[in-house]
Amino acid sequence: MCELLGMSANVPTDIHFSFTGLMQRGGRTGPHKDGWGIAFYEGRGLRLFQDPVASCESEVAKMVQHYLIKSNVVIGHIRHANVGKVALVNTHPFVRELWGQHWCFAHNGQLADFEPARSFYRPVGDTDSEAAFCDLLNRIRSDFPERVAAEDLLPHLLDACSTYRAKGVFNCLLSNGEWLFSFCSTKLAQITRRAPFGPAQLKDAELTVDFTAETTPNDVVTVLATEPLTDNEQWDIHQSGEWTLWRLGECVARGQVA
Amino acid sequence: MCELLGMSANVPTDIHFSFTGLMQRGGRTGPHKDGWGIAFYEGRGLRLFQDPVASCESEVAKMVQHYLIKSNVVIGHIRHANVGKVALVNTHPFVRELWGQHWCFAHNGQLADFEPARSFYRPVGDTDSEAAFCDLLNRIRSDFPERVAAEDLLPHLLDACSTYRAKGVFNCLLSNGEWLFSFCSTKLAQITRRAPFGPAQLKDAELTVDFTAETTPNDVVTVLATEPLTDNEQWDIHQSGEWTLWRLGECVARGQVA
Repeated sequence: MCELLGMSANVPTDIHFSFTGLMQRGGRTGPHKDGWGIAFYEGRGLRLFQDPVASCESEVAKMVQHYLIKSNVVIGHIRHANVGKVALVNTHPFVRELWGQHWCFAHNGQLADFEPARSFYRPVGDTDSEAAFCDLLNRIRSDFPERVAAEDLLPHLLDACSTYRAKGVFNCLLSNGEWLFSFCSTKLAQITRRAPFGPAQLKDAELTVDFTAETTPNDVVTVLATEPLTDNEQWDIHQSGEWTLWRLGECVARGQVA
Repeated sequence: MCELLGMSANVPTDIHFSFTGLMQRGGRTGPHKDGWGIAFYEGRGLRLFQDPVASCESEVAKMVQHYLIKSNVVIGHIRHANVGKVALVNTHPFVRELWGQHWCFAHNGQLADFEPARSFYRPVGDTDSEAAFCDLLNRIRSDFPERVAAEDLLPHLLDACSTYRAKGVFNCLLSNGEWLFSFCSTKLAQITRRAPFGPAQLKDAELTVDFTAETTPNDVVTVLATEPLTDNEQWDIHQSGEWTLWRLGECVARGQVA
């Protein structure tokens, strides 16, 4: 199993604290030593950093930790390989362009007997995750050749996620830079931080941050992760079938499929 | 005008020396201060590093220089903005998936009255370069829905490049990871290094490398750049309309369109 990390914020925010916690699970406090990746939206642009080595030993991860990249939407992932060998091409998150936007996707889980129809978007690597992402985009493109609002897309997204979930474990994060969507099949947690901010203590490293010093009173920052990253805050643990949609840090829709 | 950098090699090779030379032109010895990017193929995977700031001042560029990434195919670019504001989204190289392969493209030049038909691949940013790349992929996809060899693709590639060149200046590098294609409209230089290797002296920085110490006798490494990067070697200066196709460092096809 892999670990997911997502962020949606109303101001460009650095994810240094959460990223530091997650990176420990990549070979130190967790077994996810088969690569890691993180994507930062910067306007309509997307920065993607990946490495098919343990995140706790990755030179690129060190650079990302020291270089404080600020973003409104982030998707990160650390990998414990099951389908597909350890290689850059199999490292999440995956990116494709749809409607003139960069879409970004990361998956935690495993799908059985998943052989989607060959269509426009095709996996470059060997993972069931990238195959599911391509299938999802092929469905969206087929239903909506032109851009629609996330709200109109939601029923289609949920249909697709339900199909994948029926084939195994499908926890995922998806974004086009405007919004961040999550789907929980077995495991996902979330926290929304807003004023009054307080201190937070990482579970996986000796690091505490006082968000009061790092934020303004209007900041709203939501973080999603496979498991809570801090041990002194109340995280919302998502149920199986629960999905959420975030824009600028705020939840704009949420629900649960059967 | 921007500057291009390309590499094709028969063994995974680090491009540290050439990259160091190019980066100086990004704000120090050259005026290309509006961003830079470099893409390294690693098997079928692709690492893309970009920054919309002067390369000589970029933290990400420093990391790329110190972290010796070895690759068989590299495409790099430093930007002097003309069309499209300075932003990550407008920073070359651009990447799209076609036929289950990551395609990568960088352009030097400017196109006038270029308004390609809206089709599958769409630009995310505002540059004529990304619009040309998307148009090129739309043409290829329309002519060849399934993968073909580079040799079969060539006439179509050359048709497209000739069209773009008629609309302005169109020097470009294109790769799908298997081969590297170049098209010269006004300015492109190339060198192929093989045994016996000798020392090379950068034009843009006080740096000399003795390739004898860094290579084996079987290595073949071709570097393409807008202008020669070294001043003690003989570079092949491409003519207007000249194109080349490289695989594993060797030229597998070349010619010139009228």
